[in-house]
Amino acid sequence: MANPSILILAGDGIGPEVMAEVKKIITWYGEKRDLVFDVSEDLVGGAAYDVHGVPLADETMAKAQQVDAVMLGAVGGPKYDVLDFSVKPERGLLRLRKEMDLFANLRPAQCFDALADFSSLKKDVVAGLDIMIVRELTSGVYFGQPRGITTLENGSRVGINTQHYTTEEIRRVARSAFELAKRRGNKVCSMEKANVMESGILWREEVQWVHDNEYPEVELSHMFADNGAMQLVRWPKQFDVILTDNLFGDILSDCAAMLTGSLGMLPSASLGAPMANGRPKAMYEPVHGSAPDIAGQGKANPIACILSFAMALRYSFDQGDEASRLEKAVEKVLADGVRTADLMGPDGGTPVSTAEMGAKIIAAL
Amino acid sequence: MANPSILILAGDGIGPEVMAEVKKIITWYGEKRDLVFDVSEDLVGGAAYDVHGVPLADETMAKAQQVDAVMLGAVGGPKYDVLDFSVKPERGLLRLRKEMDLFANLRPAQCFDALADFSSLKKDVVAGLDIMIVRELTSGVYFGQPRGITTLENGSRVGINTQHYTTEEIRRVARSAFELAKRRGNKVCSMEKANVMESGILWREEVQWVHDNEYPEVELSHMFADNGAMQLVRWPKQFDVILTDNLFGDILSDCAAMLTGSLGMLPSASLGAPMANGRPKAMYEPVHGSAPDIAGQGKANPIACILSFAMALRYSFDQGDEASRLEKAVEKVLADGVRTADLMGPDGGTPVSTAEMGAKIIAAL
Ligand SMILES: CC(C)[C@H](C(=O)O)[C@@H](O)C(=O)O
Ligand SMILES: CC(C)[C@H](C(=O)O)[C@@H](O)C(=O)O
Repeated sequence: MANPSILILAGDGIGPEVMAEVKKIITWYGEKRDLVFDVSEDLVGGAAYDVHGVPLADETMAKAQQVDAVMLGAVGGPKYDVLDFSVKPERGLLRLRKEMDLFANLRPAQCFDALADFSSLKKDVVAGLDIMIVRELTSGVYFGQPRGITTLENGSRVGINTQHYTTEEIRRVARSAFELAKRRGNKVCSMEKANVMESGILWREEVQWVHDNEYPEVELSHMFADNGAMQLVRWPKQFDVILTDNLFGDILSDCAAMLTGSLGMLPSASLGAPMANGRPKAMYEPVHGSAPDIAGQGKANPIACILSFAMALRYSFDQGDEASRLEKAVEKVLADGVRTADLMGPDGGTPVSTAEMGAKIIAAL
Repeated sequence: MANPSILILAGDGIGPEVMAEVKKIITWYGEKRDLVFDVSEDLVGGAAYDVHGVPLADETMAKAQQVDAVMLGAVGGPKYDVLDFSVKPERGLLRLRKEMDLFANLRPAQCFDALADFSSLKKDVVAGLDIMIVRELTSGVYFGQPRGITTLENGSRVGINTQHYTTEEIRRVARSAFELAKRRGNKVCSMEKANVMESGILWREEVQWVHDNEYPEVELSHMFADNGAMQLVRWPKQFDVILTDNLFGDILSDCAAMLTGSLGMLPSASLGAPMANGRPKAMYEPVHGSAPDIAGQGKANPIACILSFAMALRYSFDQGDEASRLEKAVEKVLADGVRTADLMGPDGGTPVSTAEMGAKIIAAL
């Protein structure tokens, strides 16, 4: 059988730096655990624009469709702010999500014991926090038609986007959330604005349908998204799995990420339908952005990207034990007090570099 | 000259209880400060549905159009959850906003010194917090067409809502934000998803236009709404005025409200264009909901509703000094340790009733 394949798209800013540490870990797995991956690399975002004039070349898109998993670093940077909407770095990312049909975006918001003090929230509110946000990723207002800006005769303009969901789009991502809940706390809270938006009513009804017909044993609740934002801030531990749409998921998952105080630590997985080999189409990426202000200085925290690879081990390569081993290695290094610059407390200390953090994690493996 | 007029729509749940305290304060102003208001009352929400079969009768709507200010309590309750979308209590509220054209929703998120410990955030993150969220309230996805749920031939359904903004809609609410900023910290941060939504691009460009042409002396920044949610949690004091659209404003203002730890304390004002007498069309309401679980028990905190009346004094009746006096009376009562049930700390104490809190505030006036 061929080795499992990974396409690395390191992207912009700190993307290449944090991905360098993941590459070392991939190599380690081949050498020490006989888990050999076929790794290829390509460009995305501003890096692709610089070479191809588009944020994702067609050949890269084709490659992404063929591999078992894509590892993405980060896209964007001030240099590209002036570009037209259609070729901005983000479009590369959105094209990957859409054309690979990665409808279920898994964003764990987890507070690491060693880092509970870093949160702006009180320690008892976040210590031990472990929630999973399942965000619909290929539909909604991100992709709905019609969209665009029209100029009227009098010179005034109209900006339009369309929130658009179908029964099938809602049901399939709901199934992902219920499946995850079964292996966790067995609770799903679905969030929308059914009190204001008809698309939210449909969302609520279809999620309820999947629950009643396929997962009656999982506890399901519904919450308006504004209340969801409040409850995340008030007492996030009330949640297990949160299921929501593309736009609410964008905002609520960032809010949840910040609760943990460890943005540089949070991974994500974007999963689609199973391929011929049974593996889901998949892309893994850190939740943090390209952080142009610290790019190229060896300061970035590679943990979010490394934990994204742990998610790849779990969801793409059926290596749940190895994923847990890697996650434990990260926890150990943190418990030992090893800190990149973003994790330095007010009492100082000397931060380690991106590469040093990577090396410590490999040592702990 | 006729007395200024107020229409009270107490609504559902705890609405009537908290409004009862506002009525006493209105009476106090007439008797003690010779500030006499013509007060009328009517129904909204479930209370209106019970009598009229609609959550806002046409006659009530007509009255609201004629008064100088509407004071709204809260709408909604479990009894009305089964109602059709078109007659749910919320529709009464949305009709008032839309037909009165109350485009600028002002939501201060303020942390009261005496209550800084109630926040789930660390005290230094929220103590002294004082930000103002200006939310567009009459357009966007709340009102855009087309909207609705369609059933296809194969039985699958499609839910649609439309995000829709025009140049004029954006510019007028931007002006409200800049005007407020001038009287505060002179900073506006505008939030959208211009990296994903064309309506967000239009929003950003039009806000920038108003800034450059009319308020170049105010500091303007732009932020993606997901990052905005993060920054609100990370370090909310970086903000002065936040300007955003209807849907993002719904979520971000609730998130900001919860930061302060004092949801029962937060007022809001919804303002429209000036009427013939120079006063803006206006509606004032507490940010909290109808809280059906504690309704009718005399437990509710009337402060959010009382502070909403303070906003009415300031924005509708040109009584900025009296508004400050009322706000100071509230602060004094809190500093004295008077607490309704929602403000009881873990160390207990005896909470006062809604009416006792109202009486203490009047005594402090
Ligand atoms: C970069 C941007 C297009 C993206 C999004 O809005 O989805 C990001 O915020 C995210 O959450 O992955
Ligand atoms: C009750 C509901 C319709 C309303 C809204 O979504 O605007 C509420 O959440 C608010 O923020 O005033």
